[in-house]
Parts: sequence; structure tokens; C-alpha cells
Amino acid sequence: MVDLLAKVREGNNRAVARVITMIENEVDAAHEAVSILYPYTGKAHVIGITGPPGSGKSTLVNALAKNFSNAGYSIGIIAVDPSSPFSGGALLGDRVRMHDLAGKPGVFIRSMASRGSLGGLARSTWAVIKVLDAAGYDIILVETVGAGQIEVDIASAVHTTLVVEAPGMGDEVQSIKAGILEIADDFVVNKADRPGALRTVKALEMMLHMGHIGAERHHGQSFNSAIHDKKQEVADWPARVFQTVASEGRGIEELAERIHAHRDYLIASDEWIIRERNRSRKELSQLLQERFMKRLTADIPDDVREAYIDAVAARELDPYTAVDQLFNQISIRMNESVI
Amino acid sequence: MVDLLAKVREGNNRAVARVITMIENEVDAAHEAVSILYPYTGKAHVIGITGPPGSGKSTLVNALAKNFSNAGYSIGIIAVDPSSPFSGGALLGDRVRMHDLAGKPGVFIRSMASRGSLGGLARSTWAVIKVLDAAGYDIILVETVGAGQIEVDIASAVHTTLVVEAPGMGDEVQSIKAGILEIADDFVVNKADRPGALRTVKALEMMLHMGHIGAERHHGQSFNSAIHDKKQEVADWPARVFQTVASEGRGIEELAERIHAHRDYLIASDEWIIRERNRSRKELSQLLQERFMKRLTADIPDDVREAYIDAVAARELDPYTAVDQLFNQISIRMNESVI
Repeated sequence: MVDLLAKVREGNNRAVARVITMIENEVDAAHEAVSILYPYTGKAHVIGITGPPGSGKSTLVNALAKNFSNAGYSIGIIAVDPSSPFSGGALLGDRVRMHDLAGKPGVFIRSMASRGSLGGLARSTWAVIKVLDAAGYDIILVETVGAGQIEVDIASAVHTTLVVEAPGMGDEVQSIKAGILEIADDFVVNKADRPGALRTVKALEMMLHMGHIGAERHHGQSFNSAIHDKKQEVADWPARVFQTVASEGRGIEELAERIHAHRDYLIASDEWIIRERNRSRKELSQLLQERFMKRLTADIPDDVREAYIDAVAARELDPYTAVDQLFNQISIRMNESVI
Repeated sequence: MVDLLAKVREGNNRAVARVITMIENEVDAAHEAVSILYPYTGKAHVIGITGPPGSGKSTLVNALAKNFSNAGYSIGIIAVDPSSPFSGGALLGDRVRMHDLAGKPGVFIRSMASRGSLGGLARSTWAVIKVLDAAGYDIILVETVGAGQIEVDIASAVHTTLVVEAPGMGDEVQSIKAGILEIADDFVVNKADRPGALRTVKALEMMLHMGHIGAERHHGQSFNSAIHDKKQEVADWPARVFQTVASEGRGIEELAERIHAHRDYLIASDEWIIRERNRSRKELSQLLQERFMKRLTADIPDDVREAYIDAVAARELDPYTAVDQLFNQISIRMNESVI
């Protein structure tokens, strides 16, 4: 593993691919890889691109990657597909990309499927971002399908988040889901040559306007605050709505410039380090929770656990009282010197 | 509160509405309400209906509720909208429903928005299901927008899950997202009079067929197993794909019969109690995690926590090692007699 990770740091694509496979398949691989590579991370500009199915995200990522690559940047692409393993969704996106990008020097493309565990997918993605970062890629594009919790989780690990919509994706504005407005640095209406594009742009702009008025500015005060201080800069970086026709490359240059400008803005302000802190907070929180549940699973005897579940299922005990009882039996103590 | 909960048990709609508002606004209200009402729950047939935006879920829920109501059942409807509070998505769905259902005796409708916390939304929804159950509603319909983690979480609290699709929602089959195939008892292609309906039906049927071959049968062995034993009955209750045009009531009668049949199947087999156990397992797991994080937040001094976050953000410490260090400083001990 140590040899392999040394090759990762030299930017060896085959070593990168092997480490990612290990992270996907072995629980402890992420631990080992991240522990060793972590000091060499922090240079890449990590960009998250999310949106509902059918919005043309893959094509947009492809077009942006070509633009960045032509400008001399090396690019890592992670396509995160939480679909069931047999949906083939990721493969679809890959075929589009392979046509244009595969074999181009300085471009690395990888799909990640869920293999059944959603929490695990976010964690693996965090680790893979670090592997690509340590391997020296200048820009890492993380594409996620949809707008669920996993997108929100992954967004906490990136510097710049684009939310992609397409015209006529149902008249409901509901495709903008929980937390998405809060995580979006900019919006893209792709397939903007289709009917209804302007209406989608207007709907997003109206929502942004309402969001500015209504949004509270959360500051992280604990390990598990949901939104943190990411959007405190709303006044300094007002999100905009861009229009693209990614399949023809239209609007891509302007969007790419905007992405570079966002990076400059993050660094010039204190936002870059604030986002690094939020990312750290989120990772520590999730890893702690996982460790705790693992420990709890090991420490509570199986028959006790199942007896509690039986009692709650049979309505003999309500879940809150059950947790009170269980928790009162667990001694948690913080030792003196911690750091 | 105790008086109010007594009125809930008499089926007083205003009391139900007030308790739900309290659950949404006050952290401890769910604890108190569930502790008291829990023994009186377990009678309602809880049905989850989920699917992407634009699939016509609200209209379908509306049509099913009318069918059930005409057949003499009392109905509680919870429309869960994880959209940002200012999206107005929930209101939209309500307007459709109010036209047909509002004021009908034995029908209670309530929207729930996220107000910023997704984890909190799933927990509130679990509590509200129990309130409606204790209030004596025969059937509880839980409508969720989209297909993210929150749908999977809510699905673990219901007896029957329908996944709704519409024709032509993008050519990608990706709208069937992570875990959705695993949680679906049946599929509905709504707006089945639109072009492409048959193709969507075929795509779902093919996926179901592949799923049957590929699906592993998970059995809950801990508090935090992801999928549990819910689909072990895949052979006994093969999911089917139904077609509806909910706006005209077409296909609703057949679907309603199928839903009743599923309830009968769950009770006749051991599935009903297995699902109650899974629900209990999930609730205990989530409540325990929340309690732990609360305790941890209280026990770790603010400056220590922030120092760790700083060290990770500055790449002085990798997140895995940080969690190792923190965790080693926490003593967790299980006392002797637990239950």
C-alpha cells in the first residue's frame, strides 16, 4: 500500500485507479490511504456538479473538462452514482465522456456506484477526492445524480457547487430540493435551447431572491450542525443563473471563467479556509458517529439489542424511553487532556 | 400536553394539528407525544408514496385518498417536502388536494417542510405518523418528493411503499435511485396516457427482473444495518408495475385493491411484524446517534473541538487519525444489567 501511495503522489493513473478500487471494496483502505496522503492534499480546486436526472450533467461536466484541459489544467472526474448497482447509469455517462476525453493526457475519469450503502458512498467519495488531490490534479469535478442527502454531504467536501437544471423538468419547482439552494454557488440551466428555458431561469432567479431574504446564516457551533457557515458570504458572492447548451459547447467558456473567478474569490476572502473547516467538521462528525455505532454494536450484547427492538416493535416500550434506558446504561466519559 | 394528547386519542383534528405543530417546532415535543401515544399505535396501515418531481404524486395520493375515503376508511395524509422553506412546493400540492378532499369528514391533510434540518424531518415524520395512528386514522398516506436518503429513511417507517414514475422523465433510468428498488413494494407509472408510458413500464419491469436476480437479502444484524430484512419476501410478493392516470381516476381502483392486498399479505405472513422490527431498529439507531452526538457536543470542550477542526483543515492532522485520538479519549462503558 505504501509503495502504491508513493506512485499516487507521482500522478501515476494506474496507481490512482487501484487505490480507488481498494477504497470502494475495503473498509480500512480509506483509513490507510487518507492517513498517508492527507498532508499532500489541499491544492486542487474541487467542484461539485449536481442536478436531477435528465439535466445533462454528464455532458456539461464533459464540456467543462475539455475547456479546463485545453487551458492546461489536469482534470480528475468522479461520477458518483447512487443508483442501484444494476442500473447502469454511471456507464451511460461514461460512454458520453469516453468519446471525447478518454486517453487525453492529464484527464482521469472514474465512476463510483453505491454498492448498497449510501453513507459509505459519501465517505468513499471524500476519500477519492483526497487521492486525486494528492495525485496532483489541478481541478477535480465531482458529478452527482439527483439532489438528495448525498449531494448535500458531498457538497460539504467541495469548494464550488454548481446546481444544474434543464427546462421543462416538470412544472413544479420542486426539483430544487432540500439544502440545494443553500449549497449552490451558481446555477446552470442546461439545454437552454429548449422551450421553457427562460421560465426556468426566471423561477431560479426568483427563488434566489427569496432565498437571500429568507436565508439565515448558520455558523457551525458543534460537530453536527447541518448547514454551517458556508453561505455567510451570500452578499459577497451572489449566486447567478447561467445558461448552457453543453452538447454544442455554448455558454461553457463563460461558465468556466465564472468557476475560476469563484476560486479566486474563495482565496481572496476567507471562504476557502472556512470551507476547509466545514469539510473537516463534517468529516469528523460522520467518522465519530460511525465509530460510536460500531463500538455500540460491539458493546451491547446481541440479545439485549434484539430484546429492545422486540419491545419497541411490540409497543411495550416507546423508542424514546428505550433510548433513554439504553443511554443511561452507557457511561461516556471524556478524559482530561485531549489534544 | 397531556390533555391535548387525550384529545388526539379521541380523533380530534384540531388537537392533532396542534400536536404536529409542536413536534415541528419544539425538539422535546416529539419525545413527550410519542412516549404517551405510542402504546395506542400500531393499528393504521401506513403507506409511503415516493417518486421524482413531476410524476404526479400529489394527484395520485389525492385519487387514492378519495377511493379509500369512499370505501369508508378514515385517512391521514402527510406530504413531506424536504425543499427549502421558501420553495412553496408543499403548498402547491396542497392546493390540488384541498380542491377535492378538504373538509371531507375523516380526512386529515398536513404538509411538513424541512425548516433546514433533513435528519430532523425524518424524525418528525416518524413522530407524526404515530400521532395520526394514535388518533385512529385507518390509513396514513406519506407522500415524499424525490428519491433521496430521506425517502429511504421514511420508507423504513411504513408498511407499503409505492414508487411513482412518469413517462419521459429523461431517458436515463437514473430516476430510480439508490435503495429505491429495495424499498418498493410496487411501482406506478402515472400519466400513463402520455407517450413513452409503455417504455417506462418495460424499463421498470426489466430492472425488477434484474433486481430479483441480483438482490441480496439483508438481515438486520446491528442497529445500523442499511437495508435490513425488508425484502426477504421478494419471492412471495413480487413487485408489479401499475399504470394510472390519476387526474382522471384511471387505474386507481386496481391500485387501491393491490394496496389492501399487500396489507393482507403482510399480516398473513410474518412481514408485518418484521417491518415493525425494522422500523424499531432504525428509530433506535437514529435516536441513539443523536443522543450520542448531543452528549459528545456537551462533553468535548468547544476549544478542543475547534482545535481538532483547525488541525484537520490545516492538514496538520488527517481526519481518521483525529477521530482515533478523540475516540481514545472517550471512555464508553456498558453497565452490567441493561434491560
